[in-house]
Amino acid sequence: MGGSVGGKRPDEPAGSGRAPGALRVLRVERPEGTRVRVGPVEVGGPGFVVMAGPCAVEGAEQVQHAASVVAAAGAHVLRGGVFKPRTSPYAFQGMGEPGLHVLAEAGRRHGMPIISEVMESAQIPLMEESTDILQVGARNMQNYSLLRALGKVRKPVLLKRGLSATLQEWLLAAEYILDGGNEQVMLCERGIRTFETELRNTLDLAAVAWAKQRSHLPVIVDPSHATGDPALILPMSLAAAAAGADGLLIEVHPKPEQAMCDGHQALTPERFETLMRRLPAVLDAVDRHLWRPESPAQVVRAR
Amino acid sequence: MGGSVGGKRPDEPAGSGRAPGALRVLRVERPEGTRVRVGPVEVGGPGFVVMAGPCAVEGAEQVQHAASVVAAAGAHVLRGGVFKPRTSPYAFQGMGEPGLHVLAEAGRRHGMPIISEVMESAQIPLMEESTDILQVGARNMQNYSLLRALGKVRKPVLLKRGLSATLQEWLLAAEYILDGGNEQVMLCERGIRTFETELRNTLDLAAVAWAKQRSHLPVIVDPSHATGDPALILPMSLAAAAAGADGLLIEVHPKPEQAMCDGHQALTPERFETLMRRLPAVLDAVDRHLWRPESPAQVVRAR
Amino acid sequence: MGGSVGGKRPDEPAGSGRAPGALRVLRVERPEGTRVRVGPVEVGGPGFVVMAGPCAVEGAEQVQHAASVVAAAGAHVLRGGVFKPRTSPYAFQGMGEPGLHVLAEAGRRHGMPIISEVMESAQIPLMEESTDILQVGARNMQNYSLLRALGKVRKPVLLKRGLSATLQEWLLAAEYILDGGNEQVMLCERGIRTFETELRNTLDLAAVAWAKQRSHLPVIVDPSHATGDPALILPMSLAAAAAGADGLLIEVHPKPEQAMCDGHQALTPERFETLMRRLPAVLDAVDRHLWRPESPAQVVRAR
Amino acid sequence: MGGSVGGKRPDEPAGSGRAPGALRVLRVERPEGTRVRVGPVEVGGPGFVVMAGPCAVEGAEQVQHAASVVAAAGAHVLRGGVFKPRTSPYAFQGMGEPGLHVLAEAGRRHGMPIISEVMESAQIPLMEESTDILQVGARNMQNYSLLRALGKVRKPVLLKRGLSATLQEWLLAAEYILDGGNEQVMLCERGIRTFETELRNTLDLAAVAWAKQRSHLPVIVDPSHATGDPALILPMSLAAAAAGADGLLIEVHPKPEQAMCDGHQALTPERFETLMRRLPAVLDAVDRHLWRPESPAQVVRAR
Repeated sequence: MGGSVGGKRPDEPAGSGRAPGALRVLRVERPEGTRVRVGPVEVGGPGFVVMAGPCAVEGAEQVQHAASVVAAAGAHVLRGGVFKPRTSPYAFQGMGEPGLHVLAEAGRRHGMPIISEVMESAQIPLMEESTDILQVGARNMQNYSLLRALGKVRKPVLLKRGLSATLQEWLLAAEYILDGGNEQVMLCERGIRTFETELRNTLDLAAVAWAKQRSHLPVIVDPSHATGDPALILPMSLAAAAAGADGLLIEVHPKPEQAMCDGHQALTPERFETLMRRLPAVLDAVDRHLWRPESPAQVVRAR
Repeated sequence: MGGSVGGKRPDEPAGSGRAPGALRVLRVERPEGTRVRVGPVEVGGPGFVVMAGPCAVEGAEQVQHAASVVAAAGAHVLRGGVFKPRTSPYAFQGMGEPGLHVLAEAGRRHGMPIISEVMESAQIPLMEESTDILQVGARNMQNYSLLRALGKVRKPVLLKRGLSATLQEWLLAAEYILDGGNEQVMLCERGIRTFETELRNTLDLAAVAWAKQRSHLPVIVDPSHATGDPALILPMSLAAAAAGADGLLIEVHPKPEQAMCDGHQALTPERFETLMRRLPAVLDAVDRHLWRPESPAQVVRAR
Repeated sequence: MGGSVGGKRPDEPAGSGRAPGALRVLRVERPEGTRVRVGPVEVGGPGFVVMAGPCAVEGAEQVQHAASVVAAAGAHVLRGGVFKPRTSPYAFQGMGEPGLHVLAEAGRRHGMPIISEVMESAQIPLMEESTDILQVGARNMQNYSLLRALGKVRKPVLLKRGLSATLQEWLLAAEYILDGGNEQVMLCERGIRTFETELRNTLDLAAVAWAKQRSHLPVIVDPSHATGDPALILPMSLAAAAAGADGLLIEVHPKPEQAMCDGHQALTPERFETLMRRLPAVLDAVDRHLWRPESPAQVVRAR
Repeated sequence: MGGSVGGKRPDEPAGSGRAPGALRVLRVERPEGTRVRVGPVEVGGPGFVVMAGPCAVEGAEQVQHAASVVAAAGAHVLRGGVFKPRTSPYAFQGMGEPGLHVLAEAGRRHGMPIISEVMESAQIPLMEESTDILQVGARNMQNYSLLRALGKVRKPVLLKRGLSATLQEWLLAAEYILDGGNEQVMLCERGIRTFETELRNTLDLAAVAWAKQRSHLPVIVDPSHATGDPALILPMSLAAAAAGADGLLIEVHPKPEQAMCDGHQALTPERFETLMRRLPAVLDAVDRHLWRPESPAQVVRAR
């Protein structure tokens, strides 16, 4: 282990003004690990946190339905995208600000903090006011202007790993946010792009264990984007828990076949309930448990 | 799911004389799953099988020591390479046939079947006589002459996934062996080659869950080659168990720092014992258990 | 060929409001090919355009020196970064706006239009006023907010391919800019990220030929970032010309060993002169030539 | 440059019995470059060598037709596979030995040496007697038993780069053959496997320039397998010539739409003739020419 982030590609000369051992993101700086506070929920402690909901906010009825389903099954945070980065300019780009109000209302009604993606600095004031976690998507992991701006935000940030980001680059992207003064950062492994094309991406669970050992940040796993296949989300969620992840980010849609975005990879409510029933036993095997408010560990403040 | 193996790369025209649905490797051909018999041990049933030992057989003392360590910790099969595929012609190439006798003797003394790698057809008669499982290495996954020859062997074969083999190619490589008449085939995920260089390879656990759903063959995970980092082998072994793997293939060396091959990734005896103590709880969470001879399920014959 | 952009990964459902055949980026929309006007220079016609200069603007003296060297050798456009996307927040981040004035002054003095990278929408007004080509870096290829903003700009845009962007994603990123109303777009292949680590990236020259056949946009090749090795820039530049590229983007530094950024991959003035002497013969073999103002073809306006 | 082969992946400990500087494959061992003799043809000198013919030998008529077409267009060596490595055991596996006699007869009739793939050591005596170049396919690049056996052969070997072989591994595979005593080795770049799926593989022309600088072996490029797209073979062939390749290996089929193997990527006779007409100008630009018997350079014996 130790205090350095190794790098083997001849991509970039070190050229750093700090010694590597001084990186804020490394575990050596905070051996006990960072705990991130999301409303009443704590991420990074013994409690395992499940964030679930639709890929995209499509309307009030859909989100309320999804929120009631995931809340009933035991999810802790409600997810939903309102600004959607899409490969084609002609694909559905999200509901924008009105969608955010719909999501926030559903979260309030079901007592769940909400997470949504921020795509550019100009959206930060709105997102900071309305959401509980600001998510940075894989395509923006090295959007350094956005990262610097998020260093000034007073809300937690979930930083997804880029499609072809090395482990070193992932930690250094987080370093941009920490360096700006925001220490409430969660890493999120969502699959990397490899030669394999049968599945949407290749879920890199060794990256989760590596990041837990090297950094002090909580690590969340997104098996929905990683596999793109609902039949693999249950086994990959259990594997993520066993590998030491601190939580999951999962797409659930009341009617996947009608979804406007990524419906093919959303869990049905039934499959999500099965997942929530199966998780506790695996968590127990690694001395963890689903996060719950009464847990004494959660009384301790994160910072 | 269903009976076809999809393929999205324009690599190879279908050009098959059989309909895809007729592939022998697919689960549809054997919904209950294949159980492979290795001496007294059964792979592919509820019992989870651990194969452990040194990367390379270096001498009688080293192997006896390793065998006693892994047997005491509860491993079921003894591993050890005697023919070593090495990138450089000047690297240690293995002890060859004498090493095989050393390995077999250590297995006998500790009551463990043995597994070792076969590199070419000419070695098959010797290997078939002396070993209990013939391992095909990643570099030989598409050595079709070797695969065809192994289709005629009466011993189980463990087929490692190639460094850049797609899931489809992996199953079709197994199909070569099944098509030759040998149905005792185990698949082994050992990490794929990606852009990431911090770790030796990228362990693809979604491939394990996918292969369990698509094929009827047992799937073994090799976290030693996949990560190349002893600190990651425990979490990846637990994750493999949670993902539905049927067993593990692990490098253990009494004195890793003195190993002639891949010592940097071998577990010390202490770390291996810790792993064996931690596995049962995760296996229990997915309704599995470490294989044990008295299990009634093992009385059922595999074929 | 034809009018569609194929896609084989299960990444993204089509979900487009336009038929694929209606994509503006495809050659079918403009069979003769787009010619981009950069000051007096035309890109995309028979003239081959060389853009050269330092990776980063470090000061007036360095840029003036570099400009005089590349101008004397026959380069057409002066390059130099003032906003630098860096993996580490502690690496040199560029001179910012003062650097831009230094670069513009050097361009004026040597009669060369200038190209520099824009990293975020907020920089666009400044960049649009001071530079002749706005470059989008590989890390921002899917920064859709930035792409949409560049669709409103009245200056040419050079769009670098992302580190792991598929050919389809590359064209669709350009489509964002075209769809916004800016048709002066150049594509730039700068190497992709693969398993190979000996070189900085893998230069994908088949992508250049493919993009020339599928789209109507000019294609520029950046062999400096693609290889990271000065000894390979000459052969890769000649190969790019033979493959049908419309120009090159090359790092040249008067004193590479003193460069503050990527000095290891910059050409010395001598090596750049050799390249400029060797290019004409290869261009002649494919019925092209180094761009020159007196060429009658250049009198024709691009749009 | 220099005498070492660098390696950055933590794949394999050095563990070599020779100092890296002593590798036989490195240019430092033979600064002037190796010239390989194939019948009357010389590879690796100023003459550029074109090897062409069908992917698979399907019958006498097809091969004779293909041979007459490629001979008339100026090809130097006739290619054709008789043992075909196929992903599926149910795909056409080649004509075997009878196909070899058909190929040899066509070569004799048109005065062309022949090249064909060897898949296992047992085929070597037959191949050594009947063919002029023994080709090792990408899937067998690290079949070390085969490589060692080819070290004892008295005929030239063309060694294709593996689908995900690093440059270092490619040279070390050649080292196996050189170390066995056979110095008549040609390297062949045929595209590597990357995330990109629009084309069959990613042609790595920087690898060609790198291999020419680091090693003393001739380097051949196979644009047919690399791209899988007939429309890209002309530009990639010209680019290969400009990059410093010593020759091409190209699939030509009289009737691609009827081919039993890889017909989609074969050139028609017309397209092949166009390629042969276009090559000389590019070769001239890099001080090379199509190989011709009367060239004084060819009178010099290779060894």
